[in-house]
Amino acid sequence: MIIDCHGHFTTVPKTLHAWRQKQLDAVNDPASAPKKSDLNISDDEIRSAIEGGQLKLQKERGSDLTIFSPIAGQMAHHLGNQQTSIVWSEVCNDLIHRVCLLFPDNFAPVCQLPQSPGEPPERCIPELRRCVEQLGFVGCNLSPDPSGGYWKDPPLTDRCWYPLYEEMVRLDVPAMVHVSSSCNPCFHGTGAHYINGDTTAFMQFLLSDLFKDFPTLRFIIPHGGGAVPYHWGRYRGLALDSKRHTVESMMSNVFFDTCVYHYPGVELLTRIVPVDNILFGSEMIGAVRSKDPNTGEFFDDTKKYVDACLNLSAEDRHKIFEANARRVYPRLDALLKKRGR
Amino acid sequence: MIIDCHGHFTTVPKTLHAWRQKQLDAVNDPASAPKKSDLNISDDEIRSAIEGGQLKLQKERGSDLTIFSPIAGQMAHHLGNQQTSIVWSEVCNDLIHRVCLLFPDNFAPVCQLPQSPGEPPERCIPELRRCVEQLGFVGCNLSPDPSGGYWKDPPLTDRCWYPLYEEMVRLDVPAMVHVSSSCNPCFHGTGAHYINGDTTAFMQFLLSDLFKDFPTLRFIIPHGGGAVPYHWGRYRGLALDSKRHTVESMMSNVFFDTCVYHYPGVELLTRIVPVDNILFGSEMIGAVRSKDPNTGEFFDDTKKYVDACLNLSAEDRHKIFEANARRVYPRLDALLKKRGR
Repeated sequence: MIIDCHGHFTTVPKTLHAWRQKQLDAVNDPASAPKKSDLNISDDEIRSAIEGGQLKLQKERGSDLTIFSPIAGQMAHHLGNQQTSIVWSEVCNDLIHRVCLLFPDNFAPVCQLPQSPGEPPERCIPELRRCVEQLGFVGCNLSPDPSGGYWKDPPLTDRCWYPLYEEMVRLDVPAMVHVSSSCNPCFHGTGAHYINGDTTAFMQFLLSDLFKDFPTLRFIIPHGGGAVPYHWGRYRGLALDSKRHTVESMMSNVFFDTCVYHYPGVELLTRIVPVDNILFGSEMIGAVRSKDPNTGEFFDDTKKYVDACLNLSAEDRHKIFEANARRVYPRLDALLKKRGR
Repeated sequence: MIIDCHGHFTTVPKTLHAWRQKQLDAVNDPASAPKKSDLNISDDEIRSAIEGGQLKLQKERGSDLTIFSPIAGQMAHHLGNQQTSIVWSEVCNDLIHRVCLLFPDNFAPVCQLPQSPGEPPERCIPELRRCVEQLGFVGCNLSPDPSGGYWKDPPLTDRCWYPLYEEMVRLDVPAMVHVSSSCNPCFHGTGAHYINGDTTAFMQFLLSDLFKDFPTLRFIIPHGGGAVPYHWGRYRGLALDSKRHTVESMMSNVFFDTCVYHYPGVELLTRIVPVDNILFGSEMIGAVRSKDPNTGEFFDDTKKYVDACLNLSAEDRHKIFEANARRVYPRLDALLKKRGR
């Protein structure tokens, strides 16, 4: 089977955005805040959003199951406060849960976390636990920059993150390192902030003892690892210069998806990064919506690029398309096995 | 001839760093600030720093001339204030001028600018003019983030930068977009901030009308363009989605160096970016000092990677190694022609 490790519910009914706006309008006047129960989205609306969007493209492009999470750009941890983020995360994660109940063969749930700038990451633990233990989620998205483009919180290797990592290890769930939107006019969201977030996180890991402290902690760095595979020599060299450890020694803990929107980029990724560390991903329907006028194909139809990589054996492809995702997300593997897949 | 478009005076005598420390110590007590004349570096000290460093490696690696500027990581525009940066830029640029007087065949000067967070970029014009018109500099380095990792100043496409661009156009000098060190603990300097700065600047250009307003303005994006060539499809797609203009239409204004520290990265660059837009660069002696244990070669010996690109014709190589630099830096071309090169 073909597992797409990176999809967001970008086609969510617009009622959600209206509810969110009301929530944000009421940040300084909690009495007027909308209740969770004020959000009315029917199963039919969800079915329609999925069937006309991600499910349609799954079928057209030939993937089987998407690891599915709330819209990354809408996590917007920098808006409101901790309580805003807690309620917003519950609302968004509950919707993902419903998608996965309606389409259990096609989607597996990953949650957003109620991060908030300057707040201890351990406050995300209750929602992570609820999603994983009560709702069957298989992983989470973790933003390295809750401030939305100003990078005011400590690096991911700071000890303030350790309680959350302890819980991730206990639950045996990985995190995709994924920033949200940027409120910094210097950074375009999907064109700069996303890619910078990926590069930044990898470099934070490289100069830390995080994986000595948490040998089983696992992160997926999306968007093909930001700039990292293209600059693999730089990172190998910086690691050697630091005399700390090597890039290679991080490969039990750090994984990359294939959300790179042209063939030469994906080909470089598969030539440079160990094949055990690459997970198929497309992030469709997401950052880039158009077709390449040179080929007539959608830029984000990344399966075509992986298919075209002649350097990959059948076993390599099986790892990238399925086996690695089942290994990195063991709760997904358990879920699939229970269903005989 | 082989022109390396990207070198910094990283082997500068340590006296300079001591002078800088005194300058910073006196930021709040200008009376105790060191004078420019307090800095005593002899020609012999400069000769020794260059002959044992960049010149030695030029000869060993087979390049002829380096476009040479002050240490990027030490520009540190975020330290002190505008006046601090003005004096510091003069001191650093004067040293580069002396290097180029002592070794006119091997180095051509590029200046740092006295940027300062929150200050109008036009305040850099006098120093740019002094360097170019009085001292024969051929270009400048421009930081897209004078705040040193917090990105508090407007994007490079904001109109506050326009007076500086008008002067660059008038003088016919390009700028290398180059951040300085990071004081943000989230960003490692050479491993995250440098690469993010490159990616960010490209995306700023992509979503603006800057090159409609300045059709002859030219920027070199170093470090192989950050993440851009690896994600070329993403940028082409984002440009198409924006219905503004295309990546291809920026190729009269935006250039990339070859500071990518492994062969597959350089090969991707030369396959993806038009060959007219690639300038040979190494940034030696710089970010990565060690040798690749797999090959026994220095990571930053980028000429080896370009040499190994079988996709490049002799004419392509001539463009990358020489012709493009002479075109993008017309004052360098004039300088070389005057010397019969």
